[in-house]
Amino acid sequence: MGFIMSFSSFIPPQRTLMGPGPSDVSARVLSALARPTVGHLDPTFVGMMDEVKSLLQYAFQTHNKFTIALSAPGSAGMEACFVNLVTPEDTVIVCRNGVFGARMIENVQRLGAKCVIVDGTWGRAVNPQQLEDKLTQHPEAKFVAFVHAETSTGALSDAKTLCSIAKAYDCITIVDAVTSLGGVELAVDDWQIDAVYSGSQKCLSCVPGISPVSFSEQAVELIQNRKTPVPSWFLDQSLVMAYWSGEGKRAYHHTAPVNSLYALHESLLMLQQEGLENSWSRHFQQHQALAQGLKTLGLDFIVPEGERLPQLNTVAIPQGVDDAKVRGYLLNEYNLEIGAGLGQFAGEAWRIGLMGYAARTENVALCLAALKDALVKFG
Amino acid sequence: MGFIMSFSSFIPPQRTLMGPGPSDVSARVLSALARPTVGHLDPTFVGMMDEVKSLLQYAFQTHNKFTIALSAPGSAGMEACFVNLVTPEDTVIVCRNGVFGARMIENVQRLGAKCVIVDGTWGRAVNPQQLEDKLTQHPEAKFVAFVHAETSTGALSDAKTLCSIAKAYDCITIVDAVTSLGGVELAVDDWQIDAVYSGSQKCLSCVPGISPVSFSEQAVELIQNRKTPVPSWFLDQSLVMAYWSGEGKRAYHHTAPVNSLYALHESLLMLQQEGLENSWSRHFQQHQALAQGLKTLGLDFIVPEGERLPQLNTVAIPQGVDDAKVRGYLLNEYNLEIGAGLGQFAGEAWRIGLMGYAARTENVALCLAALKDALVKFG
Repeated sequence: MGFIMSFSSFIPPQRTLMGPGPSDVSARVLSALARPTVGHLDPTFVGMMDEVKSLLQYAFQTHNKFTIALSAPGSAGMEACFVNLVTPEDTVIVCRNGVFGARMIENVQRLGAKCVIVDGTWGRAVNPQQLEDKLTQHPEAKFVAFVHAETSTGALSDAKTLCSIAKAYDCITIVDAVTSLGGVELAVDDWQIDAVYSGSQKCLSCVPGISPVSFSEQAVELIQNRKTPVPSWFLDQSLVMAYWSGEGKRAYHHTAPVNSLYALHESLLMLQQEGLENSWSRHFQQHQALAQGLKTLGLDFIVPEGERLPQLNTVAIPQGVDDAKVRGYLLNEYNLEIGAGLGQFAGEAWRIGLMGYAARTENVALCLAALKDALVKFG
Repeated sequence: MGFIMSFSSFIPPQRTLMGPGPSDVSARVLSALARPTVGHLDPTFVGMMDEVKSLLQYAFQTHNKFTIALSAPGSAGMEACFVNLVTPEDTVIVCRNGVFGARMIENVQRLGAKCVIVDGTWGRAVNPQQLEDKLTQHPEAKFVAFVHAETSTGALSDAKTLCSIAKAYDCITIVDAVTSLGGVELAVDDWQIDAVYSGSQKCLSCVPGISPVSFSEQAVELIQNRKTPVPSWFLDQSLVMAYWSGEGKRAYHHTAPVNSLYALHESLLMLQQEGLENSWSRHFQQHQALAQGLKTLGLDFIVPEGERLPQLNTVAIPQGVDDAKVRGYLLNEYNLEIGAGLGQFAGEAWRIGLMGYAARTENVALCLAALKDALVKFG
């Protein structure tokens, strides 16, 4: 059986990552990542897992005991929330104003539950009045789900208000915080979020592949009182709880991604050392600097001011400018990655990320200089 | 809201990993892991993904086009096989001779399909005659699933014979190769395996968190002709295919674990450079050296000769020896991890791994010396 190959070690280029994620990973986090692997039940590693829980509680601003790092990307974190909480008898209201709201709908539908859609405009925040209208029309609704920071459009929704409306109708809230965690204010307990998931590769600036999740007491009770087993064994959080629980002996469920969790620990430590509020301010300040520079270049934001994500800047591609050529030029000449448009915005917009470690003065300067050059060449 | 923490960077000890996995990760793989992160749609990364596919085809000995690395641990690889192929109308015959066969049953049951169990003895290979008997009794069976190398017991089953029996009854074969891949012969095409999954952290000696999977053409057709969507969005391989496919533009599904895939690429490259057959021989030779030393120490194998996994040696704990004390002593005094017993063998056996990079002369010597010392102390 012939297998002819002559491959070498893969030496990636040194990019500056200003797309929608993964974001720039610092040398400090990469160095943590490469520390010697220990067993996933090693007492030293179990101690580190406890610290990861505490650091995640801080990042999420929650005292939820069930706050862990799921061993898979953010889309598995999303699925974990739906598959553990929602049963086929339930009605879920999902707000859709971009790709990730649409993915939530997919999750609900594949579970066989009823999905009521609050359809919003791409590039805009979710409209709280529209949510309230649907809640009035659907008193049977048990869950409200929405995306805090829509990575596909760059729009920030008012999670606090949306959750308080949902709670007024006794709904359980499921929130996508993939791109918001660490980049803008997020207060899981104060805002009454029952289930929240994020990703390691956005404003935490860790390597991709891990999804921080947190469940409120009410959500945990719901999981514990299920009458049917969770359809997914891998994502069954009652089993995962027994593995991450600090109380007594840990029960083996799967082998945790040891080295990626070293990296997550380090990136969360960096966030804590900087301070959450300082991190939010830094993202906002770098966003302002970028916005000013983009204006000078004649580029317009897609999202109106006040609904913009500082960490993800969606910019309209000017008429006559070749999208792919500009992005290719930035990548090849400047080793700079910016993001293409996604979904409705494919070919219409660029997504410029200022996430985590990428939200730095030097990155903003590089991006503006490179874009200026590219617009002259391909404008 | 008070969050009082004073954590530092996590500096793990330098262990020798001779448990059931994760196994020792070489400096070469750790160094690949820590290379600068690039975007998951970066052309250089997409090229590397193609190489990973080819290297996995070699490791699995298959020409299956759909051969990829799933972005989650082996247990998610298992679930991906079941959730994509099996529907609630189907009957699946599962051979159970340890923890991982039992997990397959969980998967089938949670899908709502009918599960017929071939119940074997723990610590023994699956009995081909028992499988054939069940196939005769259940002509409605559509799938046969079993574990090639049972990590919980150290038993190796004759995958070639089991698959040929399953095929004689027109069944689709699902095989767990988590601990076998790279450590003992595995020939996916020749043996007619339709769906196979493995783990990165066993005989590939890569960091944990990735699951290589491969689907035959027949399996892919089954997925493509499904009448209902796969219940899991994250594990829906028709979507994952579009992301990993080299033909045309890649469709975004989720963000791949970029750095872990660097590491997998490097570990697969090491396997290819050594040669598959050489890797199998090395595992067997080190196993023989270990077996001889264990005999000298008066320790007995649980699995009979001829059914033993070279890469996972299950040894009966002698009467009167304190299991936990011995393992703790090895860990604290020698930085050596060996595995505890699992399931039926908890407290009854040790599991000594010789997986991938851990299958080296120096490791065998260390393990025997340390065990000798510990048995004197706690015997």
